[in-house]
Amino acid sequence: MRPARGFDVAEYRARVARAQSAMAAAGLGALLLTTEADLRYFTGFLTRFWESPTRPWYLVVPAQGDPIAVIPSIGAALMGKTWISDIRTWVAPDLSDDGVTLLIATLQEVGGDIGTPFGLESHARMPLAALAQVQQGVTLRSDQGIVAGLRALKSPAEISKITASCAIAGRAFARVPEIAGAGVALSQVFRDFQRLCLEEGADWVPYLAGGVGRLGYDDVISPATDEPLAQGDVLMLDTGLIRDGYFCDFDRNYVVGAPDPLAADGYACLLAACDAGRAAARVGARAADVFHAMNAVIAQGPGVAGTDPGRLGHGLGMQLTEGLSLIPSDQTRLAAGMVITLEPGITLPGGGYLVHEDNFVIDPQGARQISPPVWPQLQGI
Amino acid sequence: MRPARGFDVAEYRARVARAQSAMAAAGLGALLLTTEADLRYFTGFLTRFWESPTRPWYLVVPAQGDPIAVIPSIGAALMGKTWISDIRTWVAPDLSDDGVTLLIATLQEVGGDIGTPFGLESHARMPLAALAQVQQGVTLRSDQGIVAGLRALKSPAEISKITASCAIAGRAFARVPEIAGAGVALSQVFRDFQRLCLEEGADWVPYLAGGVGRLGYDDVISPATDEPLAQGDVLMLDTGLIRDGYFCDFDRNYVVGAPDPLAADGYACLLAACDAGRAAARVGARAADVFHAMNAVIAQGPGVAGTDPGRLGHGLGMQLTEGLSLIPSDQTRLAAGMVITLEPGITLPGGGYLVHEDNFVIDPQGARQISPPVWPQLQGI
Repeated sequence: MRPARGFDVAEYRARVARAQSAMAAAGLGALLLTTEADLRYFTGFLTRFWESPTRPWYLVVPAQGDPIAVIPSIGAALMGKTWISDIRTWVAPDLSDDGVTLLIATLQEVGGDIGTPFGLESHARMPLAALAQVQQGVTLRSDQGIVAGLRALKSPAEISKITASCAIAGRAFARVPEIAGAGVALSQVFRDFQRLCLEEGADWVPYLAGGVGRLGYDDVISPATDEPLAQGDVLMLDTGLIRDGYFCDFDRNYVVGAPDPLAADGYACLLAACDAGRAAARVGARAADVFHAMNAVIAQGPGVAGTDPGRLGHGLGMQLTEGLSLIPSDQTRLAAGMVITLEPGITLPGGGYLVHEDNFVIDPQGARQISPPVWPQLQGI
Repeated sequence: MRPARGFDVAEYRARVARAQSAMAAAGLGALLLTTEADLRYFTGFLTRFWESPTRPWYLVVPAQGDPIAVIPSIGAALMGKTWISDIRTWVAPDLSDDGVTLLIATLQEVGGDIGTPFGLESHARMPLAALAQVQQGVTLRSDQGIVAGLRALKSPAEISKITASCAIAGRAFARVPEIAGAGVALSQVFRDFQRLCLEEGADWVPYLAGGVGRLGYDDVISPATDEPLAQGDVLMLDTGLIRDGYFCDFDRNYVVGAPDPLAADGYACLLAACDAGRAAARVGARAADVFHAMNAVIAQGPGVAGTDPGRLGHGLGMQLTEGLSLIPSDQTRLAAGMVITLEPGITLPGGGYLVHEDNFVIDPQGARQISPPVWPQLQGI
């Protein structure tokens, strides 16, 4: 069952109400939002047009009342289909004043200090010259994490959408034996796997990574090469596909023929680490606790040469990664409604990586897996 | 023939040398770059990992010497495969100092005023809190358009890559009759068209837009709905696909059965406008001149109810849109090596849009089309 597209207006009103409550506590007159995900969170404005860097898009969420869109006229028709009624436009690009005067006037009309995301994972998607003008016209300061905090807690409707994306990816992963095997170039596997994701219902496939190697892969962010798969190779594919604006982010590991025993042991260790992470990922636990629960397993794994230097999971939702990080320094408390990935990684003797990842929602009763069940051994291809 | 992947090191050294020459004229000690395209332009660092907003990535191009990468450790292996040798890393995300101290130290070591893109189409992909810290440590000012100016002039190798992407999209467009027709939902057409792009050689498909309507489409940036195509509908698909990091950006228009005569006339008018734009797009002409050449045709087109309020084309390359805009106020002079789109648009009686787009390289002799020849009438499906 795929959930209906979009959200009820009540969902957006609830988001705005929570933002306004937090803004009151922070003494903010409005929020200024500039990125795709932040705009979409409050409006439902969903388009791939953000791929073009030419035009800035602004949303002003005032301390009282409904949000105000300050956007290029090319977006007026689509914004008009959302619940937003106050839509102010200019003809962009305007080389002398690309919406800045209109934005400043709107912010001054709303009044008060303006909060905008300042912290980790955020940026202002607008030219620095325009940002400087805005800072001369109004007081712009950190939103104190209000938007990131709201987005971290998913509604049931959001969880349904992420779950639907997970199901699509799960069906694509199950079909990998159709497209991968000895002699097939990794670049061809990447191309065909994206095709499988589309066939299984993805709207588009913003992210695909992977790696190949007998004793793990040497890197998990490189583009695919034309190197053909060989007997004994472990193949990892990690996708973040989109359906109705929400991501999944998990991977699956395969083996061409029979795996090296060290790779098989490493894979078993990763599954055990993921189980430990799931058990630890309860409401009230800290992100660091979940990290340590997984790290304790992989640090003692048979044949594990080293642990992954990065994080062992993260939040997930409208973006491929968002919110908390499973690292020793992140003291964020897990709360019901968070959606996270558990992503333990190890290095095998020889230095190759092995990574496993699944997706979970934090329920009051504990972490519930929303990516399909993983196979207990490396899947043969 | 598909060009080999990547570039010779000489290409990157030439880009850096041109940047350094411009930096000397501008009195800059270094450039600070933060976005995917700007980093890749000087390094060749190509990964889809930018989809994750978690980690900032920095490149410092000093006034003398080679660029310095200041990046999360997860990217060290891939950056190590490029020509960059000075790679400074931190373990990201670091909640207390996410590379900022390392970046400031690097900028101070290089010395002088630091230029960074400030203008249209640019943004700083880093948290505003980190930006404020950098601004306290060094003098950060506009790069005066240096990076955008360099990127606007494509090398022969870059033009080959864009041409290769155009050819892939051309083959996919030629196969649209396989996937579209009366009764097929637009959402299914979108999904299948992306599959065709992958089958024909796209690495991935970052952008797809389109529209449907008997007398034009009501919007060109909305996601596809499940509405089925009907007899007489015009279908437009507009893709920006990627091969080896370079985009194409053009569209094709189809008709289910026989077109409304007004739609057929409108389409002929767009082709005529595109021809006029091509004739005008000579070295030394201004972007505005090309706009006016096309606008003169569409303003007089039989059955044209109105002209598109937006621009009639733009630059193209590492991003879907970059560089100049074909609008009345853009006085940029066309130069050999620029790659542009001509994208005339009209509204038909009833208010529906009709858009046509092709891609051209500016040669010393004139504009040369690099997207495949378009069909002279709406293509039947």
